[in-house]
Amino acid sequence: MLTLYSMPSSGNSYKVRLLMHQLGIPFDHQDCEYGSGVTESEAFREMNPNGKVPLLKLEDGRLIAESNAILLYLAAGSPLLPHDPYQLAKVHEWMFFEQNFHEGTIATRQAILNYPQRAHLRVPEKLDPLLEAGHRALGVMEAQLAKTDYIAGDTYTVADIALFAYTHTAGSKGNFDMQQFPFINNWLTRVTKQPGFVELDWLPAT
Amino acid sequence: MLTLYSMPSSGNSYKVRLLMHQLGIPFDHQDCEYGSGVTESEAFREMNPNGKVPLLKLEDGRLIAESNAILLYLAAGSPLLPHDPYQLAKVHEWMFFEQNFHEGTIATRQAILNYPQRAHLRVPEKLDPLLEAGHRALGVMEAQLAKTDYIAGDTYTVADIALFAYTHTAGSKGNFDMQQFPFINNWLTRVTKQPGFVELDWLPAT
Repeated sequence: MLTLYSMPSSGNSYKVRLLMHQLGIPFDHQDCEYGSGVTESEAFREMNPNGKVPLLKLEDGRLIAESNAILLYLAAGSPLLPHDPYQLAKVHEWMFFEQNFHEGTIATRQAILNYPQRAHLRVPEKLDPLLEAGHRALGVMEAQLAKTDYIAGDTYTVADIALFAYTHTAGSKGNFDMQQFPFINNWLTRVTKQPGFVELDWLPAT
Repeated sequence: MLTLYSMPSSGNSYKVRLLMHQLGIPFDHQDCEYGSGVTESEAFREMNPNGKVPLLKLEDGRLIAESNAILLYLAAGSPLLPHDPYQLAKVHEWMFFEQNFHEGTIATRQAILNYPQRAHLRVPEKLDPLLEAGHRALGVMEAQLAKTDYIAGDTYTVADIALFAYTHTAGSKGNFDMQQFPFINNWLTRVTKQPGFVELDWLPAT
């Protein structure tokens, strides 16, 4: 069986749990909640020198890090990853946008506002630029979702999973003004209607 | 012919120019240097609402943004992109690492130190955390390159191009202490010996 090292409260980890549930892939879940110290341990650093989750361990012990790399690996051959080269490129484009711009603003602000360990960062000099840049990132998504039902085109793909993870809590946990983004709000609802959808707090039975 | 909108001084744009030269793909180069205003124009924002280069226009007018998505699109079917699912996942892993952690620290510090438009950011509160985090990112690469000749394994791939772009100028433009990273330095030399290698300032003849 596959083993997933994941942080129950993290959007990046949620991406992988959601995909595995949607594809019906069973896995052993190893809890690495923020503050537990698991990812700082020597044993974990040997598996991932970058010290981050999610981390996927294959049955033969080989490892894959980076949430979006794991999504692409697990979705290969499924309807959630297009075969057409251009459609595939659009999926990649939105997944890199997510890791380069969206996560560094929208997820970072949510982390500061919600993890007690980051309470010292709750100052306007940190929070205000993240709000402004996060709204710009959401504006880029809104422009796309005004044209297509899903972020990379007309079908639901792993790019939707990648962007749903931190967007669906942007208002509630990050105080982003989601009223400005009606197309995003409709898309969020559309994602929750996908077969096999589970909420962020879902974990496999042990 | 393909059209590449690129910023001559930018590492993200360089990635694509380097790959296209190595694969022998001719292209029309549209200069979008920082400060020229091209990427702020309405015409450009219509092509890419995120306002960033590189941007690839296909012969039929369709567009692909995000440097690493363009690399994956252009390298498909070439020796620079593995077919094996696990090897491909490792290439993706390092490309997401690059956009999520490496670029936001190592490239960001270089931009602040080198573009006059960012001179106001040359303060210790900005520069010092970028130095510290950038050294950590380089440490993650160093640990891998102590084990394999190339970043995603034993062969040269687009993941090497993605990470070479901002690593090879980390010392000269970002004042990172590259003496700490002998395996990275050997790898940098190894990349420059690849067939078709060109320097950052190479542009196609017009």
